Amino acid sequence: MNQNSRFVIVGLGLLGGAYALGLRKAGFEHVAAIDLKEEALAFAKEKGYIEEGRTQGFEEMLARADYVIFSLYPTAFIQWVEKYGALLPAGCLCTDVSGVKAGLVDKVQALLPEGVEFIASHPMAGKERSGVEHAHLVDFAPANFLITPTEKNTEEAVDFARSLAKALGFARIHVISPEEHDRMIGYVSQLTHAIAVSLMCAPDAERFADYTGDSFRDLTRIAYLNAPMWAELFLWNREYLTEEIAAFTARLQQLKEYLQSGQRQELEAMFRASSAARAAFDKKEKEG
Amino acid sequence: MNQNSRFVIVGLGLLGGAYALGLRKAGFEHVAAIDLKEEALAFAKEKGYIEEGRTQGFEEMLARADYVIFSLYPTAFIQWVEKYGALLPAGCLCTDVSGVKAGLVDKVQALLPEGVEFIASHPMAGKERSGVEHAHLVDFAPANFLITPTEKNTEEAVDFARSLAKALGFARIHVISPEEHDRMIGYVSQLTHAIAVSLMCAPDAERFADYTGDSFRDLTRIAYLNAPMWAELFLWNREYLTEEIAAFTARLQQLKEYLQSGQRQELEAMFRASSAARAAFDKKEKEG
Repeated sequence: MNQNSRFVIVGLGLLGGAYALGLRKAGFEHVAAIDLKEEALAFAKEKGYIEEGRTQGFEEMLARADYVIFSLYPTAFIQWVEKYGALLPAGCLCTDVSGVKAGLVDKVQALLPEGVEFIASHPMAGKERSGVEHAHLVDFAPANFLITPTEKNTEEAVDFARSLAKALGFARIHVISPEEHDRMIGYVSQLTHAIAVSLMCAPDAERFADYTGDSFRDLTRIAYLNAPMWAELFLWNREYLTEEIAAFTARLQQLKEYLQSGQRQELEAMFRASSAARAAFDKKEKEG
Repeated sequence: MNQNSRFVIVGLGLLGGAYALGLRKAGFEHVAAIDLKEEALAFAKEKGYIEEGRTQGFEEMLARADYVIFSLYPTAFIQWVEKYGALLPAGCLCTDVSGVKAGLVDKVQALLPEGVEFIASHPMAGKERSGVEHAHLVDFAPANFLITPTEKNTEEAVDFARSLAKALGFARIHVISPEEHDRMIGYVSQLTHAIAVSLMCAPDAERFADYTGDSFRDLTRIAYLNAPMWAELFLWNREYLTEEIAAFTARLQQLKEYLQSGQRQELEAMFRASSAARAAFDKKEKEG
């Protein structure tokens, strides 16, 4: 990656826009974008996020690309690669922003032409908002950037993903397998969203809105979500997420049984374990 | 309530201490306290939260009390009233800070001597910390203050609880029945704590600590809790809490079924319902 490198961002939504803005801020001159919506491209060009944008006729733009960043939902990503992947030039390095990896990465790598390498990555920096017009609200600095190489990837490609993350301002960069990534995301992000949704869909939620405190507000802030995107991510990761929901439910049922049978000691032990885990977690986070 | 009123706080922990400090700040001169720990009393006296503190020999202090505030765990509260309730003078008004009401309030009202009225109330302003030394961290202004009268209570007593809440700086004061209070607390506070504990007790919690984002941090902040107090509150409210856990679990299982059978439309509908409920909740909160 150098100042003359040519980037193409495919899908100029919230994250695609934030990447474009981040790259321009980092001094890269040649950032172009492809999107279905003229307005998104016009907005980004007007704001100086991109040099050029196209909804079609992007063959030449792709032919000159050094780096391509896919910022599409997983299903649309695969469809795009099936349709246009052959336009990517040999030597070009590609990455993405998808929130699921296993299943997706193999498929994309198999579809791309010889000499075009795809190194998957995931910036854990979403927002409740969507669209390029909110891209300036995304903050990469405190977020995790995950690189998920497969056996087919080269060290050079991993280094590119790392340099990209650094250029965008990510302080926390990890390399992890696609399977471990999806298991982790199933627990850390998707299970928490499933919980918030289930809590917020209660008939009591509206009834008791007058009485909620910080704990309820914190737990349900993420209940405001982009429905099509999260449905897609949940379904792509259904196996791990189903396991996590089952394991969580078993622990909650255990707590309920202690409660029903009046097992105070066991309840307190569970609370102490939870407090200890949270304390260890805070400590680890401070050190990290 | 006037500047010459004599307050006695029984139980000088986090909330008892915060009440003492709040009353002194509001200009009340005569705030005394009873606690088992000399250190707690000495700390509060040294800081000017109380005029006087006693671990025993508090007969005269109680005999002069206009208002008594019980800041004890429910079981200890009942035991105290059984042992010392007869020392309270006729005309004295009592309240508490307990997080559960049904079952407790009736019992206390039945135990108190003729002429001593107990009006139950609940300041929803806890902290993860405990102890009088953290009392200054408690912020009443944004919290709900709930008054839960029974048929035995007079209007005068409800007015006292309201005046007390205002003096302490609570902006949101509600009058609600003990049963409705406990059902609401079961959902808004206890269910959320049960969820956070169940999430934090996962073997994955530590394993994935490096990767957590805001959503996980928000959901588990309350997993750090005072184990004996929460076990006591959960057990006192076991019927409502058990119902809330069961209803929440059913919704989460519904989501899991949609996921397993690939019902994208139903998943998206659930996400939209959740987002709409959260939006309505935010709107209501802003207006309130």
